[in-house]
Amino acid sequence: MPGSFDPITTGHVDIVYRALPLFDRIIIAIGVNSQKKSLFPLDQRLNWLKDLFADEPKVQVDHYEGLTLQYCRKIEAKYLIRGIRNAADFDYERTISQINHTVASELETVFFIARPHLSHVSSTIVRELILGNGDISHFVPAEILRHISPLSD
Amino acid sequence: MPGSFDPITTGHVDIVYRALPLFDRIIIAIGVNSQKKSLFPLDQRLNWLKDLFADEPKVQVDHYEGLTLQYCRKIEAKYLIRGIRNAADFDYERTISQINHTVASELETVFFIARPHLSHVSSTIVRELILGNGDISHFVPAEILRHISPLSD
Amino acid sequence: MPGSFDPITTGHVDIVYRALPLFDRIIIAIGVNSQKKSLFPLDQRLNWLKDLFADEPKVQVDHYEGLTLQYCRKIEAKYLIRGIRNAADFDYERTISQINHTVASELETVFFIARPHLSHVSSTIVRELILGNGDISHFVPAEILRHISPLSD
Amino acid sequence: MPGSFDPITTGHVDIVYRALPLFDRIIIAIGVNSQKKSLFPLDQRLNWLKDLFADEPKVQVDHYEGLTLQYCRKIEAKYLIRGIRNAADFDYERTISQINHTVASELETVFFIARPHLSHVSSTIVRELILGNGDISHFVPAEILRHISPLSD
Amino acid sequence: MPGSFDPITTGHVDIVYRALPLFDRIIIAIGVNSQKKSLFPLDQRLNWLKDLFADEPKVQVDHYEGLTLQYCRKIEAKYLIRGIRNAADFDYERTISQINHTVASELETVFFIARPHLSHVSSTIVRELILGNGDISHFVPAEILRHISPLSD
Amino acid sequence: MPGSFDPITTGHVDIVYRALPLFDRIIIAIGVNSQKKSLFPLDQRLNWLKDLFADEPKVQVDHYEGLTLQYCRKIEAKYLIRGIRNAADFDYERTISQINHTVASELETVFFIARPHLSHVSSTIVRELILGNGDISHFVPAEILRHISPLSD
Repeated sequence: MPGSFDPITTGHVDIVYRALPLFDRIIIAIGVNSQKKSLFPLDQRLNWLKDLFADEPKVQVDHYEGLTLQYCRKIEAKYLIRGIRNAADFDYERTISQINHTVASELETVFFIARPHLSHVSSTIVRELILGNGDISHFVPAEILRHISPLSD
Repeated sequence: MPGSFDPITTGHVDIVYRALPLFDRIIIAIGVNSQKKSLFPLDQRLNWLKDLFADEPKVQVDHYEGLTLQYCRKIEAKYLIRGIRNAADFDYERTISQINHTVASELETVFFIARPHLSHVSSTIVRELILGNGDISHFVPAEILRHISPLSD
Repeated sequence: MPGSFDPITTGHVDIVYRALPLFDRIIIAIGVNSQKKSLFPLDQRLNWLKDLFADEPKVQVDHYEGLTLQYCRKIEAKYLIRGIRNAADFDYERTISQINHTVASELETVFFIARPHLSHVSSTIVRELILGNGDISHFVPAEILRHISPLSD
Repeated sequence: MPGSFDPITTGHVDIVYRALPLFDRIIIAIGVNSQKKSLFPLDQRLNWLKDLFADEPKVQVDHYEGLTLQYCRKIEAKYLIRGIRNAADFDYERTISQINHTVASELETVFFIARPHLSHVSSTIVRELILGNGDISHFVPAEILRHISPLSD
Repeated sequence: MPGSFDPITTGHVDIVYRALPLFDRIIIAIGVNSQKKSLFPLDQRLNWLKDLFADEPKVQVDHYEGLTLQYCRKIEAKYLIRGIRNAADFDYERTISQINHTVASELETVFFIARPHLSHVSSTIVRELILGNGDISHFVPAEILRHISPLSD
Repeated sequence: MPGSFDPITTGHVDIVYRALPLFDRIIIAIGVNSQKKSLFPLDQRLNWLKDLFADEPKVQVDHYEGLTLQYCRKIEAKYLIRGIRNAADFDYERTISQINHTVASELETVFFIARPHLSHVSSTIVRELILGNGDISHFVPAEILRHISPLSD
């Protein structure tokens, strides 16, 4: 399950738990893009993921640079897990999944549609709320919230 | 994997094979709606499915009346498998999957996005082509094609 | 606020209460289309609406035949209230609101976007669940539910 | 340019005139579907089309039964002309144009996007307005309007 | 009615006048984002708004920094007014309105769908036309046009 | 046919060949935007286009700065040719084509919908694959591929 998780949201967590029974192992991997500045440093994001899923032996946390495709090949992942919230997500994910299929026919993407009460949650919105001192308590797991709150004081 | 499969298309077959490695067992179940007249009789559609997947021990074929939800409960299915081709499909599938989640929280839907060369294939189009004596050879598995061709003579 | 309310859902009720502070009077009007058979008779639908909003002096209940446009003219309504759940709703509502604007420039439509936990609720789905003996308790107001339950026994 | 033109709208007329400079000949062909009842009889629709384009030597009027694809082959048409108003139209037209490409690779579809002031005009809406005695004067060419008005008295 | 109004378009003006009968007071508020450079300075944009609505006692003009949500709380606004032109707008506005509902349940958003002849007008396009010396006379109120024209000489 | 062609893809090439029979002359023109950095220099992109269509006497290659609209006027082009892949493309192209119609009523846009097996190909994706050393052989014409490959070593 690739992403930037900047920061991880309640939407991401929900997708992980819904996908979990289907897989023997889920690797949550932070894609690092040196061009795009993140709000939270990689180390913090990795630690949050590890803490959140510390009790889930099937969940591993990792990070990678470069194409998701190539990372999947390296770790021999057979399925990408992605959540879709709305039509804009769908258009984007369709293109990416079809590219992956064309370039690496062995790599399959499995989609979960966000549950209604989470369909408006995104890391982008959370970052904007944080920068504007807004309330993010509905959008971020409680464990993470503790660490972010001081920032917005 | 519920549907009317009236008739089964190359699009359906592709989704089954893409989903297969992920599941121990896939039940392809024809939903029977006494209100909606089908082009092909139930028996023929069931036989086509059985023939097509005769060599796949993990695939079973069944049919049901009433709500997909209740059928899933009866057979204790935990995941629905669905393909999505375009934005209209997405809007429809999102509503259905969210309804299923609300009514039966234990029932999860897993989506696959149709591969590019199959994203325009649908049973509706195949039926229209058949009724108009059009060429359906790109849209229906070869095994089925043999049985349909005489109809369109 | 026009509609067929066949039956009224928790989604409809939410839109009424969100719109209420903005208007002096809201008329919930059931459009009767002699061509389209409804699941519940007009009288029952009217009574449900009256019961539900009995304590809201600003809400009136009515019904009409023919075009919504002409009904609005007759009762001198200046605003139509409509809810939008998804992109398919949006496309439909945009066309209708633009038609109304062209034909009757004085008639304005005001839209509310369904709240996340109600964005998958529709009368169509409720009718299907009822016909299939499914659980509709999340989608229909408790007052109505009492009257429908016996049907689904 | 295939369609049911039941009736022809100002939207259809606009597309014809926008496409005209691009082609040596445009055949406006009414597709007849014996299953679908039309509001106006075929003869009347054909006469309206002939009257409207009487002064355009490049425009011909015709009708056909069965698949549009096969009609195009018979008359050796190389391009289908279609208008798109909104995202729902787009999804539908994409599927059809891709089917046509797969079944008859020599048949190409050319699209024009409806101009803003015509993007909400459709035969379906016009039929509903006529049946409800609504004002259709913005949506139907003046020549046609004369013939329809008496109906709605 | 929040926005950057960089510059205000005929589309914005239309939404204000359509919403006006519904509200006792409309505050048009320019959101200032220090990260995003605007084409026109804040002062000029504020003056344009004040000039345009000088004769509308119900319209006030203001500006704010930070989250729209927090500004609404400060001025005790109960309704946000937003226009929607197309499906992309809709997806964006749905997410924002649902976020606002979750974070500040008392803040409601009311939507108007752009009228057909204004559904393609945007500040982004106007800015591009200005920078390329294009004709913006259909997209910007006449009063503003006078002030912008010299720039594009 | 305007674009940045950074680089040209198999999708672009397909649209050119599908449009070719319809026009006496097609000018493929690279729009140069001094603000937006391209991956490949203008000269290389121009040469690629010239090489690819060297045997097509009806195809010319050019470049321009500023608005596409004004370039079309200068060269007296009457039709813009554009491809559409998905709903997001459609929303964007609709706005642009309607703007062009409003500002320069004589400029018409003709659309082709991408064929299924090319509907996920874009210059953006190709650039990302190049930067990540991914395999672009399905997305770029063979003639161009030769020149790009060394870069990704």
